Amino acid sequence: MTDELIFYTNPMSRGRIVRWMLEEVGQPYKTELLDYATTMKAPAYLAINPKGRVPALLTDRGVLTESPVILGYIAQTHPDAHLAAIGDSFAFGDMQAFNMFLAITVHVAFAHVFRPERYAEGEAAARAMRAKAPESLAAAFALIEERFADGRPFVQGERYTVADPYLFTFSRWLDTRRLDGRPLGALADFPHVAAHHARVGDRPAVVKVLAAEAA
Amino acid sequence: MTDELIFYTNPMSRGRIVRWMLEEVGQPYKTELLDYATTMKAPAYLAINPKGRVPALLTDRGVLTESPVILGYIAQTHPDAHLAAIGDSFAFGDMQAFNMFLAITVHVAFAHVFRPERYAEGEAAARAMRAKAPESLAAAFALIEERFADGRPFVQGERYTVADPYLFTFSRWLDTRRLDGRPLGALADFPHVAAHHARVGDRPAVVKVLAAEAA
Repeated sequence: MTDELIFYTNPMSRGRIVRWMLEEVGQPYKTELLDYATTMKAPAYLAINPKGRVPALLTDRGVLTESPVILGYIAQTHPDAHLAAIGDSFAFGDMQAFNMFLAITVHVAFAHVFRPERYAEGEAAARAMRAKAPESLAAAFALIEERFADGRPFVQGERYTVADPYLFTFSRWLDTRRLDGRPLGALADFPHVAAHHARVGDRPAVVKVLAAEAA
Repeated sequence: MTDELIFYTNPMSRGRIVRWMLEEVGQPYKTELLDYATTMKAPAYLAINPKGRVPALLTDRGVLTESPVILGYIAQTHPDAHLAAIGDSFAFGDMQAFNMFLAITVHVAFAHVFRPERYAEGEAAARAMRAKAPESLAAAFALIEERFADGRPFVQGERYTVADPYLFTFSRWLDTRRLDGRPLGALADFPHVAAHHARVGDRPAVVKVLAAEAA
C-alpha cells in the first residue's frame, strides 16, 4: 500500500488515533477536516461515506470506516511496523475484541454524554443518560484494569499494538472530558490503566504527535 | 483448528449467528447456555469472560468475544468454507466495518429498547430511548438498503460472507421484535434488504438451523 490515502476526520473525533497510526507507519495521506453539522452531512461526503461519520479512510479500493477496522487495516498493510499480531487469527481477534469493547462500551458511554440526541429526545432523557455515564465508564475501566492485573505492560502483553494508543486516547478522555465542569471519571482510580497511559505517553511517536497537536 | 471449542450463549442473544457459522463450517463445539441474571454474572463465567456477556467462544488460546470478532475468527480459521475474503485486508476490513455497524448502531438501538437500564435509570428515560429506537433503526436500515442499490446479492457483492447471516438475523428482528405489541420497523420498507433476507433464508444451511431452532 503506497498510494496516498485520504483521511476524513474532525479534531474532536476518535480520528486522532488513526492519524497517529498513519504517522507511525509513515503512510502518505491527505487530511480532509469535516465539520459535524455541515460538511459531514453534505452530499459530497455522503457519496464517500453514507454514514456521514468520521473517521473514514479512502483507499484506491474504496472507503473503510469504524476506528477498530481502520486501525486493523493500517497494522495489516504495514507488517514491518509490528502494530498487530498479523497472521495469528486468535491474537488479532483478541486485539479487535478489545478495540470493539472500547468502541461499543466506552465510546458509546461518552456518546451518551456528548451526543445524547442520538439515543433519545429531550433534556430530561439527556440528563438521565448523562447521569449514568460515570457509572458505565467506571465499570468499563474496572474491566480494563483487570486485564492488566497480571502486570502486562500492554493490552496484549509484551507486544505493543494499535490497541495501546487507542486505549490511551480513551484513558485521557476519562480525565479531560467534563460534564458540568467535572471530569467523567478519575484515571487514578485505575492504577494499572494509569501506568499504561504514562507508558504509552512516553513513546517517542506519541510525544511527537501530542506536541504537534498542542502547537 | 480442530480442538473442540466451548461456546457460551443465550438463545435470546446474538449468539445464534455464531452457532450457525460453527455449524456451517463443521467446527466441533460444546454449548453452554447461560442465563442473563444468574450464570452470566457468576464468578465461574466471569473468570472466563470478565464482561459477563454472551456470545463468547473459548479456544485453547483463550476466550474471544464480540460477535463480529468471533465471526471473523471462524471465517479465518476455516478458509475452505469461503466465508470471508481471507488475506485481502481491504475486503476483510470492509466486511468487519459492516458487521461493526450492525453491532454498534443496529444492535445498540435494539438494546435501548430491551436493555434501557444499561444507558439510563428510570422509566421516563426508558420511554424516551424506546421512542427514539424506530427512527434510529429506520435510518440504519436505509443505509443498508443503499448498499444494495447496485443490485448486489450479498453484503460484499457476489461473495457470500459471515456478514450475510449476521444481517439476516437483524433484518428478522426488525419485523419480529416488538415494542408495546408493535414491531420496531417494517422490513418491507427496505425492498433490497427484504430480498437479501429471503435470499439468505433460502440457503440450505440456514433452512436447516431455522428448522432445528423451531423444533
